[in-house]
Amino acid sequence: MPKISNKGINMPESPIRKLVPFAEEANKRGKKVYYLNIGQPDIKTPTLALDAVKIHSLEILAYSRSEGSEEYRKKIAKYYKNNAIEVTHNDIIVTTGGSEALLFAFGSIMDEGDEIIIPEPFYANYNGFSTASSINVVPVISKIENNFALPPIEEFEKLITPKTKAILICNPGNPTGYMYSKEEIKKLASIVKKHDLFLIADEVYREFVYDGDPHYSILQEPGLEAHGIVIDSVSKRYSMCGARIGYLVSKNKDVITTALKFAQARLSPPTLAQIAAEAALDTPKSYFDEVRQEYMKRRDVLIEGLEKIPGVKVAKPNGAFYCIAELPIKNSDDFARWLLESFDYENSTVMVAPAAGFYSTSGVGKNQIRIAYVLNEESLRVAIKVLAEALKVYKD
Amino acid sequence: MPKISNKGINMPESPIRKLVPFAEEANKRGKKVYYLNIGQPDIKTPTLALDAVKIHSLEILAYSRSEGSEEYRKKIAKYYKNNAIEVTHNDIIVTTGGSEALLFAFGSIMDEGDEIIIPEPFYANYNGFSTASSINVVPVISKIENNFALPPIEEFEKLITPKTKAILICNPGNPTGYMYSKEEIKKLASIVKKHDLFLIADEVYREFVYDGDPHYSILQEPGLEAHGIVIDSVSKRYSMCGARIGYLVSKNKDVITTALKFAQARLSPPTLAQIAAEAALDTPKSYFDEVRQEYMKRRDVLIEGLEKIPGVKVAKPNGAFYCIAELPIKNSDDFARWLLESFDYENSTVMVAPAAGFYSTSGVGKNQIRIAYVLNEESLRVAIKVLAEALKVYKD
Ligand SMILES: Cc1ncc(COP(=O)(O)O)c(C=O)c1O
Ligand SMILES: Cc1ncc(COP(=O)(O)O)c(C=O)c1O
Repeated sequence: MPKISNKGINMPESPIRKLVPFAEEANKRGKKVYYLNIGQPDIKTPTLALDAVKIHSLEILAYSRSEGSEEYRKKIAKYYKNNAIEVTHNDIIVTTGGSEALLFAFGSIMDEGDEIIIPEPFYANYNGFSTASSINVVPVISKIENNFALPPIEEFEKLITPKTKAILICNPGNPTGYMYSKEEIKKLASIVKKHDLFLIADEVYREFVYDGDPHYSILQEPGLEAHGIVIDSVSKRYSMCGARIGYLVSKNKDVITTALKFAQARLSPPTLAQIAAEAALDTPKSYFDEVRQEYMKRRDVLIEGLEKIPGVKVAKPNGAFYCIAELPIKNSDDFARWLLESFDYENSTVMVAPAAGFYSTSGVGKNQIRIAYVLNEESLRVAIKVLAEALKVYKD
Repeated sequence: MPKISNKGINMPESPIRKLVPFAEEANKRGKKVYYLNIGQPDIKTPTLALDAVKIHSLEILAYSRSEGSEEYRKKIAKYYKNNAIEVTHNDIIVTTGGSEALLFAFGSIMDEGDEIIIPEPFYANYNGFSTASSINVVPVISKIENNFALPPIEEFEKLITPKTKAILICNPGNPTGYMYSKEEIKKLASIVKKHDLFLIADEVYREFVYDGDPHYSILQEPGLEAHGIVIDSVSKRYSMCGARIGYLVSKNKDVITTALKFAQARLSPPTLAQIAAEAALDTPKSYFDEVRQEYMKRRDVLIEGLEKIPGVKVAKPNGAFYCIAELPIKNSDDFARWLLESFDYENSTVMVAPAAGFYSTSGVGKNQIRIAYVLNEESLRVAIKVLAEALKVYKD
């Protein structure tokens, strides 16, 4: 029997996926499961986006341009301009989700064995994309005690080798909810310029920032034109994860020319989704204000609730819709499974994401979980109560 | 300035892309260009597929399951059953086009430096996907003189090394239009079993076969369960290239489990497109009969027309909608460009794909072009006339 690849063996499983059968089983036995584990918002997609595909007049659902239609990219450039980011449509490639933008970025700037430095904990699929691209993630640890702020510059510099090609940040962060300050971005800019590296910023949660400080994009930082690559996506912004539309944005022409070759090989991003995503660009500001309001309220309820649970430590997120909580337990993998298999409080339980999957340093994060606050306030309150009760009785 | 990757430098450009500016320029100057270069059919998408997205009742355009919805996969399994292929929904992963299925297959079974044997000429993007996956294409030459039939088994065996992991065929073939016989599939089956290799069959043109012989899928060949991986797509079948829906199909559980990890990393195939593609499965047989009829007529017009042009040699395709023609010229790159830049016949010209891009052996195919018969009969007749006139005056 022919064998699968080492790469295939090494591809990480989703840290959430393996719990799914236990959640399904819990459901079957009539338990109510509160899902705090996934980044699939419960917020409604703007109707103007959903309606746009209802009135399409296509007779042939044809390939679009590999880089996305020019009209759509021009509108995206305008969106950035409205967000004080100066780019043209030529700096943008429309991708199949931010996921594909990450793959194109990795492929365009790194070869087998090259290294990318990523502050951890980080979005778990960075591990998957790195394995798929045969590159090595070099983690630099950010700490819950510091709210997951940027680690000191020296920590990065210690890790730079001749194989280092890029630093990747997620801003605001999944799973930390941390938004980097302008000063932190400037520090990163100085390192990448000094060591001639790329700086990839995954800004898919740009719109989700809560405490008044504006989001500072790496595209706004002067002098970073040759270094900066932004990963963006409509998935969370307009609650249209299923569209599969994202963007790779860079003012570095070589990056765009190269990423375009990857884009051409796969022919085209999805055409129907581009219709919806193009319409979504007209979403009124009021939608975002409401959504932001909603998430802020949820965040406050969540953090307040978690802080009241004895032994729980939590970093208050100021962006995205996740937070990392440290629990008074030894192994959150076991705990998450136990919650689904063996626990209920008034016939309810919660599904959480064990945090170890968001670290690449092994052994770290074992007493942490990631919580996505994608449930409404009422459900969130119940879920916190369930978690509190669970921690009263759980024994490692 | 940070540098792009070697992989990025080596990523091939689309063999057609570089001609696009010349075609646009010709258009601007008022020349009528007949496009024989692209695999974008002019056939209408079944209305039931286009209508399905018009009546969607989604409030949240959410991620679908990474492997595609169970309901959709069950319907796909039924489609295969109706085509005398026995698979279950568990053998199927829904991908973002056949393109992504190819990437998942390559990643699941091959590591950096591994080798895949492909009869050439082959679909140009196999080169791109191989470069992106850091694997090496080892071409085995099939010849226009033999209608591009399967090269002798010994030719394959000569090329097998410890690094060889798979043989990839396209059946029926792009760009050759050749459909492998049952006997040829059996020969391939015997090699992959003997040498413990995978056999990947790109069957995206399965429905497009013209001369009465049924298509024989590798999934129908007994004993190939552990070896066979089928790449499939709705792009051409239902003329819905822009949907971006394909499938990876295999009875090898390890392959499915591994490909699923790649699928999970990128989260989900496009949700709207799955709605359209699921509806497309109910396309009546009459649609395919008509489409097949239409292509057969076009093929006959094309081949007859080409054979009448002095010095032109052509292999009659019995599947897909492409053919390779050998022309009495030295360099089809130059010829294709000249057609757009410097030639017209009654203010018309044609755009063709130089065939060298479909070969990985350098220097081969330089006097060949690929013609896609995706134009209606009338346009095709004009295009052939233009080509004939062009060859009268062209000088290398
Ligand atoms: C940080 C981050 N980046 C990228 C993605 C990829 O999202 P998509 O491919 O839907 O754009 C996600 C999805 O959860 C994410 O959290
Ligand atoms: C032979 C072959 N395989 C795969 C593909 C990929 O098509 P898609 O990604 O649209 O399914 C094509 C497209 O032209 C093709 O010709």
